[in-house]
This record gives sequence, C-alpha cells and structure tokens, in this order.
Amino acid sequence: MDKNIFMELLAKREFKAVRSILNVMNAVDIASLLSELQDKELAQAFRLIPKEKAAEVFANMGNTMQGDLIDLFTEKELKEVLNDMFMDDTVDLLEDLPANVVTRILEAVGPEKRAQINKLLNYPEDSVGSIMTTEYVDLRKWMTVKQAMNHIRQVGIHKETIYTCYVLEARRLIGIVTAKDLMTADDETQIEELMEKEIISIKTHDDQEEAARLFSRYDLLALPVLDLDECMVGIVTVDDAMDVVVDEATEDMTLMAAINPSEDTYFETSVIQHAKNRIPWLLILMLSAAVTGAIITRYEEAFAAIPILVSFIPMLMDTGGNCGSQSSTLVIRGIALGEIEFKDLFRVMFKEFRISLIVGATLAVANGLRILIQYRNPSLALVIAVSLVATIIIAKMIGCVLPLLAKKVHLDPAIMASPLITTLVDTCSILVYFHIATLIFHLSL
Amino acid sequence: MDKNIFMELLAKREFKAVRSILNVMNAVDIASLLSELQDKELAQAFRLIPKEKAAEVFANMGNTMQGDLIDLFTEKELKEVLNDMFMDDTVDLLEDLPANVVTRILEAVGPEKRAQINKLLNYPEDSVGSIMTTEYVDLRKWMTVKQAMNHIRQVGIHKETIYTCYVLEARRLIGIVTAKDLMTADDETQIEELMEKEIISIKTHDDQEEAARLFSRYDLLALPVLDLDECMVGIVTVDDAMDVVVDEATEDMTLMAAINPSEDTYFETSVIQHAKNRIPWLLILMLSAAVTGAIITRYEEAFAAIPILVSFIPMLMDTGGNCGSQSSTLVIRGIALGEIEFKDLFRVMFKEFRISLIVGATLAVANGLRILIQYRNPSLALVIAVSLVATIIIAKMIGCVLPLLAKKVHLDPAIMASPLITTLVDTCSILVYFHIATLIFHLSL
Repeated sequence: MDKNIFMELLAKREFKAVRSILNVMNAVDIASLLSELQDKELAQAFRLIPKEKAAEVFANMGNTMQGDLIDLFTEKELKEVLNDMFMDDTVDLLEDLPANVVTRILEAVGPEKRAQINKLLNYPEDSVGSIMTTEYVDLRKWMTVKQAMNHIRQVGIHKETIYTCYVLEARRLIGIVTAKDLMTADDETQIEELMEKEIISIKTHDDQEEAARLFSRYDLLALPVLDLDECMVGIVTVDDAMDVVVDEATEDMTLMAAINPSEDTYFETSVIQHAKNRIPWLLILMLSAAVTGAIITRYEEAFAAIPILVSFIPMLMDTGGNCGSQSSTLVIRGIALGEIEFKDLFRVMFKEFRISLIVGATLAVANGLRILIQYRNPSLALVIAVSLVATIIIAKMIGCVLPLLAKKVHLDPAIMASPLITTLVDTCSILVYFHIATLIFHLSL
Repeated sequence: MDKNIFMELLAKREFKAVRSILNVMNAVDIASLLSELQDKELAQAFRLIPKEKAAEVFANMGNTMQGDLIDLFTEKELKEVLNDMFMDDTVDLLEDLPANVVTRILEAVGPEKRAQINKLLNYPEDSVGSIMTTEYVDLRKWMTVKQAMNHIRQVGIHKETIYTCYVLEARRLIGIVTAKDLMTADDETQIEELMEKEIISIKTHDDQEEAARLFSRYDLLALPVLDLDECMVGIVTVDDAMDVVVDEATEDMTLMAAINPSEDTYFETSVIQHAKNRIPWLLILMLSAAVTGAIITRYEEAFAAIPILVSFIPMLMDTGGNCGSQSSTLVIRGIALGEIEFKDLFRVMFKEFRISLIVGATLAVANGLRILIQYRNPSLALVIAVSLVATIIIAKMIGCVLPLLAKKVHLDPAIMASPLITTLVDTCSILVYFHIATLIFHLSL
C-alpha cells in the first residue's frame, strides 16, 4: 500500500475506500502505515480499522504512537482495545508509558485483569516472567478428547495459543497435549492416555535468554512457566522467543562495539541519543589508551636510536587487537548460545593457547620474511617476529579469559569485546615490543 | 541423565534399564547423550531407542555421528529411520554426507521421495528452498470443517506441521486456514468462509534471512513457499526460521571479528581448523597495517623533533577504530534486520556526520584539557584535539559507507566490520595527525 495514496484518501475523507483498504491489510502492515500519521488523522484512521483487527494493530505500534492514541481514546474505546489485547502485549505497553497513562489503563481493565497485570509488571526485566502470558488452555486428565475440544472452543478463542494444552492437577503441571494429538485422536480417548509426561518447563525468574535457548534446542511452539512452588503460572510463546533471540543478538553486537544498547531502531534513535550511547565507552577507552602512550614515552630513547621501530607500532597493535577480538567474540557467542560455561575456562585457555601458537608462528614467519627482504636487517625481523608471537599469545589469552570472568561475576560478557580487549592488548604489546627490542638491539634505557 | 551411569549400564548390558531411560527422555537430549558413544556401542544404544522416537533422535545428531550410524545400519534399519524423518531433515542430512552414503540413502527412500529430495538439494545454499519442507496439509475451498478435520486425521499425522493448512486451487495458494479456526468453528462451515485471503508468502529462491524476517515481523508459525510460477511447493516452519536467526547472528558476529565462519560449535572445531579460520584475515590486515607503518616512516623527522608525538599514536588509532566500528556495527545490524537499505546511504551519512561532530567535540575537549593540564602545551593540545575530530569524522564516514557499498555489490556487509575499518581508519588518522602536527608546529619535512 502506497502511503501517499492512503494519506490522500484520508485527507479527502474517502472513508469507504480507506476502510476497504484496511480490511484486506495485515495488522502489522497497518501499524507501520499508520506510523506516518499524527493526532487527529491517526485517531480517525484508527477508528476505520475493522473492530476485530484494532487491538492487534494497536499492539504492533511503537510506544510513542500507542501513548498518543491512548490520549485520543474515549474510555469506551480504550476498554475495547484493552479487552481484545493479549496479556503480554498489555504488559509490554504499560512498561513504557508514563505513570498517569498507566493508571488510566489499569482503571479501564477491571479488577481481575488488573491483578494479573500488576503481577506480571513485577517480574524483573529480561526475566521469563516479563515476557510470559497468563493465557493458556488448561485441561484435566479425566477429560475425553471431545470434552477437551469443547473446552477449547469455549475458552480458546481468546487464548494466545491453543496448540499446546496443559494438563493441570492442583495447579501443578502433569502433562502436555498438543492440538495435533487432539485433532488426530479418537473423540473418546482420555487426555491421560494422550498426554506427554516428559515436560520441558522454565521458572518465572529465569533469564529470558534461557527460555529462547530451550525453544531453539527443542523446537517448541510454547514453553510452560512455573513459579517457585512448581505451580503453572503462564506460557512463553514462540513469537516472543524469536523476538528475544533477535533482540539479544542485536544487544550483544551493540555492546561488543562499545555502544550502550538502545531498544529503538537506527533511524528512530535521535542524533543526540546516538552520541550519548557512544561517548561514555569512547571516553573510557580513550583515556585508557593514554596509558599505552605513557609507556611509549618511557622508550623515547629506543626509538630515537632506531626510528624505524615506531613504524611497526600500528601493525603490532592491530594484529594484537584483531587476535584478541577473534577469541573474545567466539567465547562471548559461545556463552550466549550456552555452549561455553565458566567451568570450561581451562579447556578454552588450553585450546586458545595452541591456536595462538599456530597463528603466531604463521604470522611471525610471514612478517619476518617481509622485513628481512625489505630491510635486510635480521635483528629487526627477529624483534618483530618474537613480538608478534608474544602479542598474539597474550591477546588470545586475554580475549578468552575476560568474557568468562565477566560471566562469573554476573556482568554481560559482551562488554569484554574488541574495544576493551584491544586497549588492554595494546598496553601489553607495546611493553613486550620495546622490551624485546631493547634486549635484542642491546639498547640501554 | 548422568552420562557415566548411562555408559556403565550399557557396558554391563543392562538393556532393560537403558531402554526405560531412553523411553522417558526427550529426543534432543538422547542425541546429545549418545554423542559420547562410538561404533558398536552407538549402534547398540540406538537400537534400544523406542521405534517412534528413533528418527527424531537421528535427525538431532551431528553430521559425523549420522554418517557413522548409517555405516552401521542394515538396509532395513536405514529405510525405517528415513521413512519417519521429515523431508527437510533428510535433505539437511544429505547435504553434508559423502557421495557414496548419499547414493545409498537415495536408493533406500524410494522413487517418489527421491524426486522430492533431489529437487530440494538443488536449491542454492541459504535460499528458502534449501530450508523448506514439502510436507504440509492442503485443503480445498469446498470442504467443510468436518471434512477438513478428517483429511488432517488421514494425512496429518506424518506432516511436520498441521497448524496452518493451505487452501489450493490448481496448485495456486488461495487461502490459509489455521488449526485454531478449524477447532473453534462449526463442523458444517465451509473452508471458503473460514479462510484468510491476505497471504504472506515467499519464493523458493529468496534468501532464508528474508523468510526469518517475515516470521519475526508477522509472528508466523509457518510460511508458504511459492515457485516462480506462483504454485505452492512447500512451507518453512518456525523452528527452522529460529535456527536461521541464531545461525545468521553467529555468522555475522564471527565475520565481524575477522574469522571465517564455521558451522560447528567452538569445541567441535579442531585447533587446526580454528587457526585456519583465523589466519587469512589476520594476514591480510597485518600486511595492510604495514602501509600505515610506511606512512609513519615518512614523518620520522617530525617525531625526531617532537618525540612526544609518538605517544599519542595508540590513543588516536584506538579511538578512530572504535568510532568506525560503532558506526559499521549499527549499519551492519540495521541491514541484517532490514531496517537500513542502500537507498538510505545519504540519510545514514548525514546522521553519522552530525553524530561524529558531537562525539568528536566531546572527546576533543576532554582530551585537549587533559593534555593542557598534563603537559601545559597549548599547541600540543590543539594538534591532538583537531586530529581527534578529523579522525572521528573520517572513521564514522568510512564505518557507515562501507557496509552499505558491500551490500550494493552483493558482498556480506559483515566483512566491513571493526578489523577492516580499523586498518583503513589507522592509515587516515596517522596521515591527518602528522599533517596537522607539521602544520601547527611549523615543522619542515
């Protein structure tokens, strides 16, 4: 749908045409189409969306737009939209709205839903509780397939997912029945016979990344969530798990590039906000790099005697940084995917040590030969080759150890990525380089 | 399940116990438990897995293990496992096996399945065709809900997903009916009345990342795949889309750290293979850094006259590299998520330019003041401050432009990440730095 045509139709008050367009469009696409509109036009267009789609369109809007719309809603409209929204979407909405709007919404939803929302709002950010929904289909083991199907028909229409049903006994989860089982079984079969008793579940306070890992490991459509007393309180659905995977990868990449993560897209974030997200780490890293600078001044006499030494600084620093970030990236990603844990520390170190020997030897030979041919100076070639090997070993050790240590002390391993590793490795490589140079060239300091 | 206990039971030939353990375990977990076993033991354990679970366990094994097992299978066993496997898993299996084993498998599956497999094998790697499955439930619009349910009961048991059913007419997709609609509608309702006509679909030759983006945008469970003639040929399921999201993020991060991506996990990859994946980029980047070194030699007289200039090289290089990688990371991720396209080039450049002015000014003031206080040398402070601003602007421009250019010429934008950007920015920043220094200090070269 062309946005300009749509705006024109709206401006010309061709409401019939607008309504028929909105009628055939997907809720997600309507939400992005409406994102161009403001205030009066926005409210007008929203009122033309077919009733059964309105809540879904609303749930797919950005937070600013949702806030604007709520301001324009009558109490009746607000109630209608909130009634049709899934519990987890309502909670997402509330998490980012100003307090007075939140109060207005909580008043509109009625006491029962309000209690559920308040409970969900209290789960820590990034916990499973914060992304779960409390709407799911619960069955009893004595039901027949026919009774179960009738139960789904009665309650299932408003449930976010009905493809995995949960068999409860005194609020405990005792089995899982899929819609597939129900649809392909005889009407008179008892749920107890059908239900799967090996249950994969998660706790409300577990990390949402753990939930996402279970989804991709076991190819789930929904994951039951238990509270501390092992009672079932909700489910996480696969679409939310997919969002977690995408968002966490983005967050890790952003952190790994020394940027404070933002929840908005690149263009949604303002220039000022972009600058704010980037400056703190740059400042810290810039001032740390001054340490490397201070070390260099200590070796002033060395490069005054042999000025060519200075020209190898960039190559050593870059190679050290690159080697360190190779190791740290693989370890950070391995931790995120649950493939590497803190207990693997020595296994990882030993592996990285052997890798750094091979990598170091190869690079040292390549660069040593180049220098030998270019400068015909065997001592210089030796200094560079030995410094390279030492730098690479140090870089890979720092690169693999720091993310695991961060994990151990409950920091996000992603902050231990290239920029920080590079700065640390710089200091080490400069120290090693000039130390080796003074030794081999018999320079006195 | 403790692996040691399991191995002991197997060694002591306690088959009853082993079988009962395997009976209650999840197929994914059995696959990882069996990964410790070899040859005879492996075949023995595999034969103890309940028949209905065997194919799923097999599908969840690593490629090496699958190959080993196939060698140990009788023709009958091979046929049984292959019969129960989903089409897309079978194709995944064949893609990584040696040719003689592939031939043996293709002979075992029978002509019809063989034709389908051969077709799927011909889709390019990373295309939608390569991850789709040809098994789905197809309905006709004249069917009633009752007829549709009966159809599902007959054919659906072996279909990978039955929760989205496709209404076909002359092989064209004309509508979609969800299992939820079927379960909650009256028995006599006609499919035509129930079916959704706004269909989100994808083509066989589209990129699998595009499919993954549609899944997360529209919260889908399955996505219908059409061929060039718009006929329906298969579906992609949400579990495969989730794998694509995870794998592509890992691949991007790996590439962004100058490592050739591997499909194996960190520990599965051998030391030699790790070294092989890391050395090529390091060599290229190391030799490119020699260019920066060569530039430095040209300014030998400058730092012979003012040796302190050398000590700011690490700070400038690191800051430039960090600024460049901030921009490139955000742009690379934006491209991967479909938020930034090549047509946004100038919009991105203008945004990054404004950001770099703010970031540059802040960092220049911070560092200039530090130098002024530490060295009481206003000219030096000025040189560093101006060089910083220039370096940051250059770094952010290179960082945002290169990934978009790479995308334009169909290279993976992820290779235009920190390491390459850093090396390029180094050369520029050293040039700018010494140029500004010679100007301000009136040095002659």
